[in-house]
Amino acid sequence: NEVTPAPSVADAYANEPKRPGIFRVVSEKPFNAETPPSLLAEKFFTPNDLFFVRNHLPTPAVHSEHYRLIIQGEGIKTLSLSLHDLRTKFPRSTIRATLQCSGNRRLEMAASKPIKGLEWTQGAIGNAEWTGVRLRDVLLYAGYDVATAGDKVAHVQFEGLDADATGTRYGASIPVAKALSENGDVLLAYEMNGVQLPRDHGYPLRVVVPGVTGARSVKWVGKIILSGEESQSHWQQKDYKVFPPQIDWHNVDWSAAPAIQESNVQSAICEPRDGAVIHAESLVDGRLTVRGYAFSGGGRGIQRVDVSPDGGKTWHAASLTRAASPTADRTWDWTLWEAQLPVQDATAEVVVRAVDYACNNQPSDMKSIWNLRGVMNNAWHRVNITVA
Amino acid sequence: NEVTPAPSVADAYANEPKRPGIFRVVSEKPFNAETPPSLLAEKFFTPNDLFFVRNHLPTPAVHSEHYRLIIQGEGIKTLSLSLHDLRTKFPRSTIRATLQCSGNRRLEMAASKPIKGLEWTQGAIGNAEWTGVRLRDVLLYAGYDVATAGDKVAHVQFEGLDADATGTRYGASIPVAKALSENGDVLLAYEMNGVQLPRDHGYPLRVVVPGVTGARSVKWVGKIILSGEESQSHWQQKDYKVFPPQIDWHNVDWSAAPAIQESNVQSAICEPRDGAVIHAESLVDGRLTVRGYAFSGGGRGIQRVDVSPDGGKTWHAASLTRAASPTADRTWDWTLWEAQLPVQDATAEVVVRAVDYACNNQPSDMKSIWNLRGVMNNAWHRVNITVA
Ligand SMILES: [Mo]
Ligand SMILES: [Mo]
Repeated sequence: NEVTPAPSVADAYANEPKRPGIFRVVSEKPFNAETPPSLLAEKFFTPNDLFFVRNHLPTPAVHSEHYRLIIQGEGIKTLSLSLHDLRTKFPRSTIRATLQCSGNRRLEMAASKPIKGLEWTQGAIGNAEWTGVRLRDVLLYAGYDVATAGDKVAHVQFEGLDADATGTRYGASIPVAKALSENGDVLLAYEMNGVQLPRDHGYPLRVVVPGVTGARSVKWVGKIILSGEESQSHWQQKDYKVFPPQIDWHNVDWSAAPAIQESNVQSAICEPRDGAVIHAESLVDGRLTVRGYAFSGGGRGIQRVDVSPDGGKTWHAASLTRAASPTADRTWDWTLWEAQLPVQDATAEVVVRAVDYACNNQPSDMKSIWNLRGVMNNAWHRVNITVA
Repeated sequence: NEVTPAPSVADAYANEPKRPGIFRVVSEKPFNAETPPSLLAEKFFTPNDLFFVRNHLPTPAVHSEHYRLIIQGEGIKTLSLSLHDLRTKFPRSTIRATLQCSGNRRLEMAASKPIKGLEWTQGAIGNAEWTGVRLRDVLLYAGYDVATAGDKVAHVQFEGLDADATGTRYGASIPVAKALSENGDVLLAYEMNGVQLPRDHGYPLRVVVPGVTGARSVKWVGKIILSGEESQSHWQQKDYKVFPPQIDWHNVDWSAAPAIQESNVQSAICEPRDGAVIHAESLVDGRLTVRGYAFSGGGRGIQRVDVSPDGGKTWHAASLTRAASPTADRTWDWTLWEAQLPVQDATAEVVVRAVDYACNNQPSDMKSIWNLRGVMNNAWHRVNITVA
């Protein structure tokens, strides 16, 4: 694959795309930015130019006419597919899926004990309609046969075209069962919300692994490798893993925890923001409108969102844009929720918690899930406001 | 189907099987009994005669030679299959799966606020090897075709041969996607741990829906119905559902919550028992051996079990009999765990919490998950002991 080289190593970030000024930028090089939370709760599909960007390396500028996706590894023949091949040899397929960074809400977790990592608030998540081809179809086209490949292949590795100064590329993997399942819905996407995939989201082709933490949905994917092993990349082996609170950098054994795959049950308040001063006359019948999102991994829909206006003493049912169905096993997208909460005092702690299809709950307590990488924070989300 | 009728309505329970005396009986009619927790943690496969029994109605005595399984409903031809048909027309298949009653650990939840329901401690769970035929194979044999039946069929209903005095039978349903998925592993079982299914566990045939709450694994199954609707039984519509703590019997709208399907992440201490007096000289190097189980629904394996000897102030990693693999998406069975905990004081509160493959955590707080039916209790499990 041809990628426009940066003029020099010092200037690896000289060729980044233009970004809108409305983002909350958490790191410039590599570029990482989140949607302002108040805008997140406004639209079920997050607009492309507001969708959070999580780049690990300089953004590659891929020449689409020379682009080739290489498929190789155990149990299949090696393929080299152009974008034209992908568009013409396979059925076009669309899924709705929420992607969430493993580090979403790290800033709150860092408040209880410092953490190294990008300081995301609750905006490192977004929901979109993705169009492309099914990874399953491509693997079957490459000759994958469960009966013969079954013993040798356990993981599907993805390699990005983004690389550091030494040429090391971003990489991740997912279990082959997820990639091959008819219900897994793993996509190689070339469109996002009906238009060509933007550069910051993986142009010309990215993986979308619905229900799984964002780090496995590799952008600018250049190579797919079937293997008995997981990706050996830093990000699969020594980064996106959860350890207990008593483990810190001085005593961590990275091999002792599995790589994060499916997301846990999550919710957050997007409006009002923490620290907001609400004018008493803006309340309707003494009630404050509160809005946010809720999401769970593995296709488990959200069955319920509870919101409290008083730090958890009393709870109210939120109304959901997307009610859980009894067959909620492929619910890859989030629900937005809204509640009108009675607010009596001059200050209020608004709290949200969600319950997913499998009756999993968010932990009330941040301390019990603190981990050295600050990932998978799904404690009850709390926002403090003043009524004046 | 022929079932030996009870001599009279008053005597509906005259023909119950003999049960071992070692059970902790929670109700005689219908018979409900749990494994003593200390015995649960001893064996990875729970012995049949110790496996918890959860009967909703009198235990039917089915004549196996006249037994027929009826398959009917949308998108298929009606079938009537004998046990011989099932054994000879379909491949024999074995799965390992934990079954857990939705009401497991209700007694603890009732302590925070009274609940109507059977008072289970932590023994309404067991793990077994089940052998039979795949429900998927039987539905395909009946002519089920995703392409044509897809729009009309959403649920697979199961009807038991157990009935009340009015003839109303036990019933439940699961989403058709679970029943048909190659990875769903739903079984029609005729053997349990290598021997003929015992009467209390559904002889001659029961459903085993791995990863899903026990109430859907219908015993003495007589009829399977493909439908656009869930089972309309009491147990699907007005029983096994989770409501928030602020909803009680006077304000419950049963249609407002989905029927429970997948289990949440769970763990419990089996040894020592709550209230145990430990002889100081039985400690080895001042350490107490603690044992128990951990389990999660949907095939999500357990990645970690933490145990605390001091009410949650400090935590220790337990060793697991079944470590989570990176491809833990079809882990239908539990893990047993063990830890040696330092115990310094005359009293100790031992606490356990588990984390599943999807990074879901158990709630620390019982109050936040209290619900009127007392189901899906997966708060951190606590056991108080005295060292003398
Ligand atoms: Mo991430
Ligand atoms: Mo149950």
